[in-house]
Amino acid sequence: MAEYILPIQRLIDEFRKLPGVGGKTAVRYAFSVLNMSEEEALRFSETIVGAKRDVKKCSVCFGLSENDICDICSSERRDHSTVCVVESPKDVIVMEKVRGFRGVYHVLGGALAPLDNITPADLTIKELVERVRTGEIKELIIATNPTPSGDTTASYLARILEEYDIEISRLAYGIPVGGDIEYADEVTLYRAMEGRRTLK
Amino acid sequence: MAEYILPIQRLIDEFRKLPGVGGKTAVRYAFSVLNMSEEEALRFSETIVGAKRDVKKCSVCFGLSENDICDICSSERRDHSTVCVVESPKDVIVMEKVRGFRGVYHVLGGALAPLDNITPADLTIKELVERVRTGEIKELIIATNPTPSGDTTASYLARILEEYDIEISRLAYGIPVGGDIEYADEVTLYRAMEGRRTLK
Repeated sequence: MAEYILPIQRLIDEFRKLPGVGGKTAVRYAFSVLNMSEEEALRFSETIVGAKRDVKKCSVCFGLSENDICDICSSERRDHSTVCVVESPKDVIVMEKVRGFRGVYHVLGGALAPLDNITPADLTIKELVERVRTGEIKELIIATNPTPSGDTTASYLARILEEYDIEISRLAYGIPVGGDIEYADEVTLYRAMEGRRTLK
Repeated sequence: MAEYILPIQRLIDEFRKLPGVGGKTAVRYAFSVLNMSEEEALRFSETIVGAKRDVKKCSVCFGLSENDICDICSSERRDHSTVCVVESPKDVIVMEKVRGFRGVYHVLGGALAPLDNITPADLTIKELVERVRTGEIKELIIATNPTPSGDTTASYLARILEEYDIEISRLAYGIPVGGDIEYADEVTLYRAMEGRRTLK
């Protein structure tokens, strides 16, 4: 696609780096930028560097924050004895949509994947252990993804935190609400059987 | 969606302005920017303002250009007596993919749409007439879109250019190559009938 003049081609190339953006979509985005006013393009451009500049990691939970300590970690209305452990900062936002969870978070920054060279040292596991050791934590809810590396991470955490007097649980697996048993895959069904609850 | 901290929310809002980008996609894009290195984000941001700054309109054909006159208009290897009239700069790129067209272009900057208040004065029609009047143009190929406003524009151009001794044609309508008659809409079929060509 060398048919575009250089400044446009560059813009197309940049948009192609966004997740899931192919050639045609990148071209559409690039032309929509060309159709913006000077002012709009400038604002767009500044927002990008602004986000990189202003978004930091909370020094307690490693979630995204504008300040040194994020709003959740610094809130007195949260239950600081219950910590939900998630893989990525995005997961915090997803969990926050679940009404009723009043605890705080710990963002691991990924999940253990020995084959991809992601070891405990690459995650904020040391910091989590430190929080458990020195803090007021009574319960850890491990909310890593239901993937092999999420599973590995959960077992690893459970093992290294065994010696501490805290409860450790993990999110339940099962058939999604509104889902159809017919279409559930075998692994999910197996996990749903395993995690079955007595009704009476 | 007020759950994101401000710099992220702003970035999401900016991405949502791109064509076809909804909430979830904008969030994905925003987080991918946060995952970029400082350097990458800066380059992305500069490419946006750079494109706005460096992309001008060719003073002859009104296509996009880095210079005052675009590469096509300044090329001696093009046939300057045949002009393909298109609605938007993007159409030039599409037409350029058609091997065999050796002429030049004229970008109208839209199509006539009285209901949307787009009149001949909003398009580069005066400039086209001037090119026809003073130039060496022998043929105009009108390649406006097969839409009501594209049609209106084509007829309008044919009418106001009637007095000049040039050929004026329009792209053929018909069933797309590789298409299926079964799935063609009635209007396309009607146009395909109208434009039928004798085989022998």
